[in-house]
Amino acid sequence: MSNLKTSTTLEFTHSHPHINALLALIQPLEDLASLLALGGWDQQTAMPRNAGETRAQQFATLQGIYHERLTSPKIGELLAELEPIMHEETFQDADRGLVRQVRRTYDQATKLPPELVVEATLVSSLSLEAWLKARDKQDFSIFAPFLERTVAIQREIADHLGYTETRYDALLDQFEPGLTSRQVEEWFAPVRTASTVLLKRINEHGSTIDTACVHGDFSLKAQEQLCESVLKVMGYDLQSGQITRSVHPFTTSLGSPSDVRLTVRYDDHYLPMSLMAAMHEGGHALYEQGVAPGIARTLLAHGTSLGIHESQSRLWENVVGRSAAFWQGQYHLLRASFPEIAEQYSVETFARALNHVQPSLIRVEADEVTYNLHILIRFELEKDLINGNLTVADLPAAWNAKYQEYLGLTPANDVDGVLQDVHWTSNIGYFPTYTLGNLYAAQISYTLRTVFPDFDQRLANGETSFLREWLRENIHQYGASLLPDEVIKQATGESLNPQYFVRYLTEKIERAYDLPQE
Amino acid sequence: MSNLKTSTTLEFTHSHPHINALLALIQPLEDLASLLALGGWDQQTAMPRNAGETRAQQFATLQGIYHERLTSPKIGELLAELEPIMHEETFQDADRGLVRQVRRTYDQATKLPPELVVEATLVSSLSLEAWLKARDKQDFSIFAPFLERTVAIQREIADHLGYTETRYDALLDQFEPGLTSRQVEEWFAPVRTASTVLLKRINEHGSTIDTACVHGDFSLKAQEQLCESVLKVMGYDLQSGQITRSVHPFTTSLGSPSDVRLTVRYDDHYLPMSLMAAMHEGGHALYEQGVAPGIARTLLAHGTSLGIHESQSRLWENVVGRSAAFWQGQYHLLRASFPEIAEQYSVETFARALNHVQPSLIRVEADEVTYNLHILIRFELEKDLINGNLTVADLPAAWNAKYQEYLGLTPANDVDGVLQDVHWTSNIGYFPTYTLGNLYAAQISYTLRTVFPDFDQRLANGETSFLREWLRENIHQYGASLLPDEVIKQATGESLNPQYFVRYLTEKIERAYDLPQE
Repeated sequence: MSNLKTSTTLEFTHSHPHINALLALIQPLEDLASLLALGGWDQQTAMPRNAGETRAQQFATLQGIYHERLTSPKIGELLAELEPIMHEETFQDADRGLVRQVRRTYDQATKLPPELVVEATLVSSLSLEAWLKARDKQDFSIFAPFLERTVAIQREIADHLGYTETRYDALLDQFEPGLTSRQVEEWFAPVRTASTVLLKRINEHGSTIDTACVHGDFSLKAQEQLCESVLKVMGYDLQSGQITRSVHPFTTSLGSPSDVRLTVRYDDHYLPMSLMAAMHEGGHALYEQGVAPGIARTLLAHGTSLGIHESQSRLWENVVGRSAAFWQGQYHLLRASFPEIAEQYSVETFARALNHVQPSLIRVEADEVTYNLHILIRFELEKDLINGNLTVADLPAAWNAKYQEYLGLTPANDVDGVLQDVHWTSNIGYFPTYTLGNLYAAQISYTLRTVFPDFDQRLANGETSFLREWLRENIHQYGASLLPDEVIKQATGESLNPQYFVRYLTEKIERAYDLPQE
Repeated sequence: MSNLKTSTTLEFTHSHPHINALLALIQPLEDLASLLALGGWDQQTAMPRNAGETRAQQFATLQGIYHERLTSPKIGELLAELEPIMHEETFQDADRGLVRQVRRTYDQATKLPPELVVEATLVSSLSLEAWLKARDKQDFSIFAPFLERTVAIQREIADHLGYTETRYDALLDQFEPGLTSRQVEEWFAPVRTASTVLLKRINEHGSTIDTACVHGDFSLKAQEQLCESVLKVMGYDLQSGQITRSVHPFTTSLGSPSDVRLTVRYDDHYLPMSLMAAMHEGGHALYEQGVAPGIARTLLAHGTSLGIHESQSRLWENVVGRSAAFWQGQYHLLRASFPEIAEQYSVETFARALNHVQPSLIRVEADEVTYNLHILIRFELEKDLINGNLTVADLPAAWNAKYQEYLGLTPANDVDGVLQDVHWTSNIGYFPTYTLGNLYAAQISYTLRTVFPDFDQRLANGETSFLREWLRENIHQYGASLLPDEVIKQATGESLNPQYFVRYLTEKIERAYDLPQE
């Protein structure tokens, strides 16, 4: 298993002139990508309201230059000359990863007609406006025609990208290399069963969790202080990052590993909103800050897929951040920011409150048990939309039916239903990676507990560097030089196996709810 | 005079295909310039410390693309075809301004060998490091070799750009189109005399100004509130701008007129530090926010020169911000943020404290009387450096001698002397524009008092929009579509005349110090 390996130094060999030539073309592209990310970060954290159109033009110009350079025939020629010889010993992992990743990006860019890309961008921006208006008016019909265009465009994109089994698979592959619907269905089935069973067991047992300690009045300043100190404990490097406030929390790389910023959202009356967002984004940020400096300024210096990325955020947020052990070790931080909570409630009560399970309508507020059911619903619906088995007109009814079936709830309106996520204004095929992240995280956490049998004790002692260092050593440093399946195999010794998640979740909820063993 | 003109709508006629072709090449360049400005703004307000090298690479890449596109032969061909026909009636001011301004920028970019530009950038960045170190160690000799390289590079740049009389003139022209040493000397002579005479009169009269009201303990939050409310009163549009904190205050355009940001520096114990910086930067920002939307996304959508730009900042900072009339109208703002000052001190006492005159060693802390003497010293020294009449080795002694001669002071060390300004790490020829700004501002202020005989009364009534609108109508909207001399002639009816400044300053100081009339 990988924890036995000696530390590697991931870098390009520079032994072949074609690798150097490829890097000379790719590095400036990464600079441009980082500047686009800067524009996006600024847009969501600082940009004045009237600057929207100006910024859109700036994006269009820079994206145009990026696309023009990425699709340069010179890159295609270098790839064609390098690929047949990449098995030779002169090349290292970083070189092979580079060629594979450039090929992937180059193909995605050259397979799509530029006018389709432009249309997708345009429709996405119109669609976002329509979505906001539809939410404002609680009227799905305002959004429907735009979603229809998005579905049509995404179907066209899928056809250009190509697929083996179903059209939807081409879209999945964009976000998680190699992922197929068949694979998703196979992985999701036991998750669905376990979640449903757990909900039923909680219900039947009738026990509840007291969440009074996380509701109340929480000053923004104290929340900011707590989030920052927790992020520092996790090992987030503020010399190479920044914590800012935004409406939707996110992490962005303006040049990994040295400029990785994250944002947090605050709720005056509900502490986990900021705290769990900070740990979640911190998990993403540690991944980007942890890539080997030797692959910086290339497209390898990022997470290898959305699913693996999400595993890092979920590991810190859920496995660590919602554990009693972690808070035992860090209760002094809570005490420093919110002494009244730490005095009034025990660590166990506080940690237990973070594991409250309650079927609800809104995905982003969902607990660990029901979260994947929200994803499953979206997966089934968007797959049907793309494969032609569901029309946009029928979507709201289908949405509501699935919520009733999986969660026993029906939204009172489409804002709490089919209009709740922004994703379908711009892309389709993204949602399943959220659940993949949960599954990867549980499997990694199982390995961690094997490697560190005293895992909980270490956390309870306030230690965290052992965890961060193991993740860096076994996952982070490789960035995108390994494929998702290679990463999970290297880190845990096997491909993704959803049983780890089933077991993790079941044990955790049994404990939190004092459920009788089955 | 321009106040009699009807409002114009400045825009491109699009009547000639070559103008449209030129715009199609120029607009994306402006997008890239705005993104470079975003990178710079971020660097000084948010960027994490470790990101410096990464950001430098991003700048280099984007600047390279900018330069490559700016020097495209296609631009040269369009200019060559357009220039002979620009007198024709089909063209408007905006078209003519565009062709002239693109020619100027194109020539500057094509005249300089790329390797010289790269060397200048490299030396500038090394020089900045050396300057910081030299300040830290109080040792000019650390900086000297880098300044020698900068002088050599700037001389080379001057030779490539070309000049009629002296080499230094080529550098002046970069910042103020058409400016020459001869012209600077002619304008500065009466300013020097007037400043020296005023210092002598204050000294002989023996009167002092009580500045107790602006020294004390000032909370950051209350200072921020005051700066924001004063900027709003000036008409700074926060929907198209942002106020941030930085070590050195500055204003930057990320796409005028819709994204113009400014920064302020705060001193816990000295209120004018932030307040006057906010009004100064606000003056710059109003200029950029005031350019006609019809010339947005081109290089016309900016101030026409550093001198005219500085006139706007100085007008708001000195003519308005240091007047009793303005504070009479806005004392409620001071009261809202610092009630203890407003209660204890009269408006007159507060405004008078802002006009305290005291010869000192540091330019950025200088009052209105001595400020231009600091500039004069720099002008004379850098002119001699470039024209070969002064060596870098002899510079500190020459600096100290001039400070003794003009201000009666000798720096105890070079940090308070020749090492105080960052400018010479990257350019030479910039300083005189500061004094030009003061002269332009006084001349504009004279016109304003002619157009609005009740100028002070309006300010005392709390009115400011009349001023902002006049500036927008007569100066701001044109951006760089008019040359500096055209701007000042249009706004005031004559070319720059330093006597307006002499008169403005003399009257102001006589009043502030109750000096007997001469």
